[in-house]
Amino acid sequence: MKEVNPIITLLTDFGLKDEYVGVMKGVILSINSSVRIVDLTHNITRHDIAHAALAISASFRYFPKGSIHVIVVDPGVGGRRKVICLKKEGHFFIAPDNGVLSLVVQDEKVDEICAVTNEQYFLKPVSNTFHGRDVFAPVAAYLSKGGEIRHMGKKILLSDIVTLDIAAPFVSSAHELVGNVISIDHFGNLITSIDQEAFERFRQEEGVKDIVISLGRFNIKTISRSYDSVKIGSPVVIFGSRNLLEISINQADAGTYFKARVGQTVKVKSVTKHKSR
Amino acid sequence: MKEVNPIITLLTDFGLKDEYVGVMKGVILSINSSVRIVDLTHNITRHDIAHAALAISASFRYFPKGSIHVIVVDPGVGGRRKVICLKKEGHFFIAPDNGVLSLVVQDEKVDEICAVTNEQYFLKPVSNTFHGRDVFAPVAAYLSKGGEIRHMGKKILLSDIVTLDIAAPFVSSAHELVGNVISIDHFGNLITSIDQEAFERFRQEEGVKDIVISLGRFNIKTISRSYDSVKIGSPVVIFGSRNLLEISINQADAGTYFKARVGQTVKVKSVTKHKSR
Amino acid sequence: MKEVNPIITLLTDFGLKDEYVGVMKGVILSINSSVRIVDLTHNITRHDIAHAALAISASFRYFPKGSIHVIVVDPGVGGRRKVICLKKEGHFFIAPDNGVLSLVVQDEKVDEICAVTNEQYFLKPVSNTFHGRDVFAPVAAYLSKGGEIRHMGKKILLSDIVTLDIAAPFVSSAHELVGNVISIDHFGNLITSIDQEAFERFRQEEGVKDIVISLGRFNIKTISRSYDSVKIGSPVVIFGSRNLLEISINQADAGTYFKARVGQTVKVKSVTKHKSR
Repeated sequence: MKEVNPIITLLTDFGLKDEYVGVMKGVILSINSSVRIVDLTHNITRHDIAHAALAISASFRYFPKGSIHVIVVDPGVGGRRKVICLKKEGHFFIAPDNGVLSLVVQDEKVDEICAVTNEQYFLKPVSNTFHGRDVFAPVAAYLSKGGEIRHMGKKILLSDIVTLDIAAPFVSSAHELVGNVISIDHFGNLITSIDQEAFERFRQEEGVKDIVISLGRFNIKTISRSYDSVKIGSPVVIFGSRNLLEISINQADAGTYFKARVGQTVKVKSVTKHKSR
Repeated sequence: MKEVNPIITLLTDFGLKDEYVGVMKGVILSINSSVRIVDLTHNITRHDIAHAALAISASFRYFPKGSIHVIVVDPGVGGRRKVICLKKEGHFFIAPDNGVLSLVVQDEKVDEICAVTNEQYFLKPVSNTFHGRDVFAPVAAYLSKGGEIRHMGKKILLSDIVTLDIAAPFVSSAHELVGNVISIDHFGNLITSIDQEAFERFRQEEGVKDIVISLGRFNIKTISRSYDSVKIGSPVVIFGSRNLLEISINQADAGTYFKARVGQTVKVKSVTKHKSR
Repeated sequence: MKEVNPIITLLTDFGLKDEYVGVMKGVILSINSSVRIVDLTHNITRHDIAHAALAISASFRYFPKGSIHVIVVDPGVGGRRKVICLKKEGHFFIAPDNGVLSLVVQDEKVDEICAVTNEQYFLKPVSNTFHGRDVFAPVAAYLSKGGEIRHMGKKILLSDIVTLDIAAPFVSSAHELVGNVISIDHFGNLITSIDQEAFERFRQEEGVKDIVISLGRFNIKTISRSYDSVKIGSPVVIFGSRNLLEISINQADAGTYFKARVGQTVKVKSVTKHKSR
């Protein structure tokens, strides 16, 4: 933490209509005027902890070590949920203890975790509705000045924190690789929970050659290299920039095309096996 | 104004679809490359001066003294309205003279006010449609370099500027505290004009014990400490982070639930009195 | 490029819902922690190259020389389209070769153009779906550290790059100046392709005195100085801040009022000539 210009990233479901995000930045800059603030996104669907968990885990490694990541998707604000602070791979995270860091800590490699309870770092009086302003922002700002996680409160264990049961893909008794749509992005791409590693393992272990990807009543027979492998307006399946299987329409909106929704089942099936039954 | 990295905040109704906000930042950075720019929000409803007035008054004190706050919600751009620049509590404000600073100057404590007329600080030629670029941005940038308000134009009086008749809550002849919904935020929380001070005064002066908050045909009987004081999906009334009475639904959208709209009447009534009638 | 704090501007159609823009910033700051990043807009309609072309050409000159402008509106990502890098008037541009720089290079004055092929400046492995992260961001960051365009790849000619056939206004055989709506902004203003120069030339060459502007079945008879030249709610035609003819409604939405759409024809006619037919 000897960075001259440490970075604080912000990830919230506050939207950009109100002054809430701006106020958090004011609090941070009042404590450390040299910090650099980067918005990850403030348009997480309200209270969508799973989407926020995906967004932070897909982002943090692209920032310099020493960065401080603040996640405020916090339906339980003002209630009994804890605020936690952890360090991993040289990055710092401050978040409500509601599972939003589930994917970040999935590999169970964490350097240090604390419950954030030390009120000397909070804005007073602490409101019961805007901990982004009164707790998260000032704690991040103090960390950016060289504060230590252990100053923020009592050390806790990884097993003490809440984790989401974010469905990992699995192989069904019908020998299909089963996952689901975990997010539909701005372009209408369907991001699935099926990662490239699980996919390769499935092909190998099941001895699968030709596959078909199915979503509802739709079947797509190839995994392509890039969107323009198919005609404009046609479905295309690729492993996207997060190494997750994505179902897209070249230059159009797969969410609308497939009438897809988050949580919907996606299956990878073997064509040959399917035929032999 | 000896700040090394002064802060300029921007509050507009420009939205984020066009390049307008980016262009303002280009103008500012061309004049002072070391200034830090913070977006308060650019999604004020078009021409909604009252919402902008609320947003800036709820924000500015969270920024360091010396900050320069630029407000461009300006339906009268290019017309006869003045541009004003004022200093208060160590903060600078540049805004059209249309009432957008009404809540900031509500306590009538202002150090200095000028009409911004000195064209040497403007971008030439000055358009009639984009003073954000041609007037507000360059004036803010010059102030951030140590310029003085009085350089920008003639000194004027607080009584010379336009103020909105933003309804303060009042006690009706029926002994009810009457306010209204002044904003519905991203989460669907209904922000009312009833502040905690007015509420406490009402309770004391009217000798009220048990109260009921009414919005249209809905009545809520308690003021809670935090959202999770009630079940998910239930109505909850709290004093929010701006010390204003807010009507919410725990983890859902009160705007939709109550079919509420900005301007709608909110009343605080005494239960006992009501019954005795 | 000896700037201490060079500026990188970002213009994309990524929207603000996902973490994509934030990740690009992480990549840039990991390579050059002192660069300043400014968002032009990320809400270009998906794949709308013409709108992006207008936005960048209307913006770049308001930034300091030495600024690096990154444009990622890139429906062909991962396909055969080139990425180009060019220098003009002291500004740097990095964009897919799909016409998005058409208006920037319209005057055919460009200092240097290269195809970006030098993979040593890319993030590895390069995905086929997110060149914003893997190509555009790191190339911009290296340029901001004093890199030269020619380091990025082979020099190409202006005639080698793709340009859009963005309709210039023309005088029809019926002696009308014909253009179209090229963008409808956040306020509902209709931005047309008719620039003030073409308009003045038309008036002079055609000897026109009184004109009428027509859009569909609507006719407007004057060009005004500012919005408030007409009553609230009335149509008004002005030359806007980009020196383009704009059709607006004072304090309301012309897009809705006229049921206008991008691409719709706008004509300037001579009143006298029209009558004589």
